[in-house]
Amino acid sequence: MSTPQTIRLRVSCPDRPGIVAAISGFLFARRANIVHADQHSTEERFFLRLVASLDTSDSVEAVRSEIETVAGDFSMELQLSVPNEEKRVALLVSSYAHCLLDLLWRFEQGELEGRPALVVSNHPDLRARTESHSIPYHHVPAPADGRAEAEAEMLELLKGVDLLVLARYMQILSKEFLDRVGAPAINIHHSFLPAFAGANPYRRAVERGVKIIGATAHYVTDELDAGPIIEQDVARVSHRDTVSDVQRIGRDVERVVLARAVKLHLEDRVLVDGGRTVVF
Amino acid sequence: MSTPQTIRLRVSCPDRPGIVAAISGFLFARRANIVHADQHSTEERFFLRLVASLDTSDSVEAVRSEIETVAGDFSMELQLSVPNEEKRVALLVSSYAHCLLDLLWRFEQGELEGRPALVVSNHPDLRARTESHSIPYHHVPAPADGRAEAEAEMLELLKGVDLLVLARYMQILSKEFLDRVGAPAINIHHSFLPAFAGANPYRRAVERGVKIIGATAHYVTDELDAGPIIEQDVARVSHRDTVSDVQRIGRDVERVVLARAVKLHLEDRVLVDGGRTVVF
Amino acid sequence: MSTPQTIRLRVSCPDRPGIVAAISGFLFARRANIVHADQHSTEERFFLRLVASLDTSDSVEAVRSEIETVAGDFSMELQLSVPNEEKRVALLVSSYAHCLLDLLWRFEQGELEGRPALVVSNHPDLRARTESHSIPYHHVPAPADGRAEAEAEMLELLKGVDLLVLARYMQILSKEFLDRVGAPAINIHHSFLPAFAGANPYRRAVERGVKIIGATAHYVTDELDAGPIIEQDVARVSHRDTVSDVQRIGRDVERVVLARAVKLHLEDRVLVDGGRTVVF
Amino acid sequence: MSTPQTIRLRVSCPDRPGIVAAISGFLFARRANIVHADQHSTEERFFLRLVASLDTSDSVEAVRSEIETVAGDFSMELQLSVPNEEKRVALLVSSYAHCLLDLLWRFEQGELEGRPALVVSNHPDLRARTESHSIPYHHVPAPADGRAEAEAEMLELLKGVDLLVLARYMQILSKEFLDRVGAPAINIHHSFLPAFAGANPYRRAVERGVKIIGATAHYVTDELDAGPIIEQDVARVSHRDTVSDVQRIGRDVERVVLARAVKLHLEDRVLVDGGRTVVF
Repeated sequence: MSTPQTIRLRVSCPDRPGIVAAISGFLFARRANIVHADQHSTEERFFLRLVASLDTSDSVEAVRSEIETVAGDFSMELQLSVPNEEKRVALLVSSYAHCLLDLLWRFEQGELEGRPALVVSNHPDLRARTESHSIPYHHVPAPADGRAEAEAEMLELLKGVDLLVLARYMQILSKEFLDRVGAPAINIHHSFLPAFAGANPYRRAVERGVKIIGATAHYVTDELDAGPIIEQDVARVSHRDTVSDVQRIGRDVERVVLARAVKLHLEDRVLVDGGRTVVF
Repeated sequence: MSTPQTIRLRVSCPDRPGIVAAISGFLFARRANIVHADQHSTEERFFLRLVASLDTSDSVEAVRSEIETVAGDFSMELQLSVPNEEKRVALLVSSYAHCLLDLLWRFEQGELEGRPALVVSNHPDLRARTESHSIPYHHVPAPADGRAEAEAEMLELLKGVDLLVLARYMQILSKEFLDRVGAPAINIHHSFLPAFAGANPYRRAVERGVKIIGATAHYVTDELDAGPIIEQDVARVSHRDTVSDVQRIGRDVERVVLARAVKLHLEDRVLVDGGRTVVF
Repeated sequence: MSTPQTIRLRVSCPDRPGIVAAISGFLFARRANIVHADQHSTEERFFLRLVASLDTSDSVEAVRSEIETVAGDFSMELQLSVPNEEKRVALLVSSYAHCLLDLLWRFEQGELEGRPALVVSNHPDLRARTESHSIPYHHVPAPADGRAEAEAEMLELLKGVDLLVLARYMQILSKEFLDRVGAPAINIHHSFLPAFAGANPYRRAVERGVKIIGATAHYVTDELDAGPIIEQDVARVSHRDTVSDVQRIGRDVERVVLARAVKLHLEDRVLVDGGRTVVF
Repeated sequence: MSTPQTIRLRVSCPDRPGIVAAISGFLFARRANIVHADQHSTEERFFLRLVASLDTSDSVEAVRSEIETVAGDFSMELQLSVPNEEKRVALLVSSYAHCLLDLLWRFEQGELEGRPALVVSNHPDLRARTESHSIPYHHVPAPADGRAEAEAEMLELLKGVDLLVLARYMQILSKEFLDRVGAPAINIHHSFLPAFAGANPYRRAVERGVKIIGATAHYVTDELDAGPIIEQDVARVSHRDTVSDVQRIGRDVERVVLARAVKLHLEDRVLVDGGRTVVF
C-alpha cells in the first residue's frame, strides 16, 4: 500500500460566498484530508493556502485536471504543488559571502525545500566556497559597458530555474531580464524598507542617527527596492556603532531575513496581492 | 433590510477527514459566507476557529440548534459566539495600578470586546481611580485567617461573570473557588515562565543575572503559575538595572502581555489543548 | 550631618587627551565620588555624562562656579544639573489620549523626573482626564487662518517651561515658535523614521505592505520629522492587520517610545551631536 | 615614528572615592589618551573597563609594571590587555555544526579577535568541515566509562589555550577538568535560562507550551547551567511549531547569542561579579 500523497493548493480569486465550501467539498468527495489551511480576505480578493493528503487511490495528476472546473467557476488563480518537489534555485551573489553561505548550509541541513542548482556571481571570489558544496559556480562579470551581454549569458545559465535568490547581488537587473527569466526573484535589501532604498543604506542610517536598523526581503520588480515585501527584521544600534559595526550587526539580520523569505517562498506560503504579500 | 449577523465558531475534536467539508458545507447550504478561518491539527486533535456572516434571512439561534447535528457526528466540542456580545469581565487587583488602568483604558477605547463589570481588590487603594471610570469597586480584604470568607464573598460578587482577569492580584485562589466561579481566569505573572514561578520573580531575576526579563499571561489552574500560557513577551535588562529598574521595565511588558491575552480570549481566539493553548 | 548632594555633568567638547583626568582630578580634589560615568568619542568630539556625589561640606553652587575654569581650558559645553530638580514639563496634545495618559501616569508613579506643569491642546477633548490629575488644561485652537495667534498664545503659556513634549500633537510648530519658546521639544512620530515621514504613516505602511511598523521619538527642529532621533522601537504586523489594527498596535509602541525618550531627556542622558544623539 | 599602542584595562575593586581620578591621573601623567571608558558600581564593588592609547614613547610593559602601585592602593583586581593580541581559542563541539561553522566564519571575517587554535569533538563528524578552514580537528571520544581518560586527553590538547567555547558540546565537564584547564569556558545552552536547565530544553518548551524560546551563553562552572550569564536572546514560537521547528528556530538564536558572548569576552568586555556578569 502506497503512502498518501500530499498536495498544496494556493488560490487567489475575487471574494464571494462558497469558495471554501467548493474546495473542501471537492476534496472531501475524493476522500482527501485537509491537513492545514489558511485563508485571508481583503475587501476585494480571497486568498487560500491549503495542504491536503490525498486518498491512497488518488493521484496528483487526477486532482490537477479535475480541480480546474472548480477553479473556473470562481475565476481562481490556482496553483497546485507537491511538497519537496525538486525546485531548482539559482543563487546570485557579488562578493559578500554571508547570505550565500548561510543558504547553502540551510539547504544541506534540510531546512529549505528544493536544491541550489547553481551560483552566479559577477565576482570570482566565492568559487572555492561554493564548489566545496558541490554546486557549480559561474563567474559572469558585469562591466558597465557589458551589462546586456552579461544578462544574456545569465539567461542561458538560468534556463529552467524555479527561483532566483539575490544573496547580496549588487547589480540591478533590467526589466527585460526579469521579464525573460521566467522565475520569481527574491532580493535582500540591507535596510528597513522603505527607509534607505538605494545605495549605501547602512552609511545613511548612521548619518541619520537611527536607533534601529533592518533588512528586507522582497520580490524583485523593475522598480528598485519597491517590490512586494516578504519579510523584514531589525536590530538595535547605538551612537557607539560605526558604519562598520552596523554592517556587522546588519549581516546577522540580512542572512536570517533572506533565509526566512526563501523558506516561505519554497513552501508556497507567499501569495502576491498587487504590491504586497499575503504570507501564510 | 437587516444587517447580516456574524458568528464565530470554535471547534475542537479528534482529527479525521471531512471536518472542514462538513462545516463549510453546512454553512454554504445556509448561504453563509466564511470570512475568516484558522485551523490546526496536532497528532490527535483538530482545532478550528471560523468567522462567518450569515444570510440576512438566517438567525444565530437557528444555526446554533442545527449545527449540533454536525458537531455530534464528529464528537466536536463546539462553541458558537457572536462578536461584541456583552461579555462581563471582572478585574481582580491588589495595589499595583498599571495593569488595571491599562485595561480600563483599552475597554474605553474599544480595543477590547465586552465590558468591565466590576473591580474586586483586597486593598482599598484603587477605588477612586476605578470609580472615575464608572466601574463598581469592591474591597474584599483577604487576611491570612479569613481566606475562605473572602472567597465566599467574591463568589457572590462574581456571579454571572464571563471572565476573571487577575491584573496583578497577589492572592492565590483556591481550587474550590476556581471550580465554583464558573468562568475562566487569566493571570499575569511577572516572569518569563517557567522561569521564576512563585514569589518575587524580578528580585530573583536580578540575583540570577539574566539579560532578559519577561511576563506571562496564562489561564489560572489550581497549580501555581502552571496553567496554559496564552501570551509572553520580554524586555532586555543589564547589570545596570536594579530590582526597582527591572520592576519599572517589567510593568511595561506586563500590561501589554495581559492586554493582548485578554483581547485574544475575548475574541474567542484561544483554544485550550491540555496544558497548552492554540492561539488563532 | 547633611546628605551629600548629587550632581550630573554633561560635557561636549573637541576630543583631546586629558579631559577625563582634568574632570576626575577636579572632583577628587573636592573629595567628590564619581558614582557613574559614560563617555563617547567620535572622530571629532568627546561626550561625557558623569554622576558624582559631593563631599558633605561642598555645595552645588561652589562646584558650578569653579568647574568653569576646567571647562574653559577644554572649550567644553558643560551642563551641571541636580537629579530630581523641579523641571517643568509642558505636554502638548491633540485628541489621541494614549501618550498623554501614559505620561501623566508615569509622572504620578515617580517613573519620570520633574512634573507636568500644564497641558496645551488644540482640542477640548482631554480636559476632564487631565484635570482629574490636577494639571491645568489649556485649550488653544489652531485654525488654519489663526496659527500665528495660536502660537503667540502658547508662547505666553509656556513661559518658564523646561521641556515640551508633543504627545501626538498634530500641528506643525513654526521655526519662529521653536526659536522663541526657549526649551527643547520632543515629538513622537508614528513611524520608523526616516520611513513614512509626514502625514498618515500607518496608512502608508499598510499600503506598502511592510511587515514591521515603528515609532520614533525625536527632538523637534524646523525641518519636519528630521530632528535628532532619541529612541525608536517596532512591532510586527501582517497582511491581516488593517489600518485600524496597525493604529492600535502602533499606540502601544508610541507611548512606550515617547516615555523612554522623555525619561532619558529628563535624566540628562541625551547629548545632541549635530543631527544625531548620544544617549547614555 | 611608531603608532601609539592601545591598551585595555579591566578593574574590579571595593568601591570608594578616588578610583577614577587615580587611574585617569596615572594615564594623563604618561600622556596617554582615554579613548573609551565604562564603569559600574554595585553597593559593594566598582567595575571599570577603559581603553587608552599610549604616548608613542611609552610601552605596554612600562605601564604594566607601574600601574601595579595604583592597583595596590585600591586592592584592585586589574587586567591589562592589548587589542587583537593573539588569543588562542579552543572550540568544543559534538555533532551539531551550526555554532561551530558560524564561529569559524566570523573568525575568518575578522569579526572576532584571536584565532581558533583547534577543534575538539567527541564525534568524528565535523572533521572535513573544520579542516577546510585549516584548523586542526581532534576527535576525543567520551564513552560513559572513559570520561576521565577523555578529559585527561583534552587537558593535554588544551594546554596554553586562552578560551574554551562549548559550541553545542553535549558532554558535562568535571569540576576537576575545569579547575585544571586554566582558561574560562563559555557554553551555549539552548534555553532561556533558568528555564529548562538540563537536557532536552526544546522538547520541554514545546510540552510546556511557551510562546517564546531562547538561548543563553554563560561561563561554565561546576554547577550545570548555573554559571554567570553573558548574553541571552529569544525568538517567538507558536502552537504550530513542532519540536523540530523549534530546534530550527532555536539554532538561529543559539549561534548569534554564542557569537556575541565570545566577541564580548574576547574584547575584554565581560567582568564577573560573583554569579553574575557586568558587560561593558
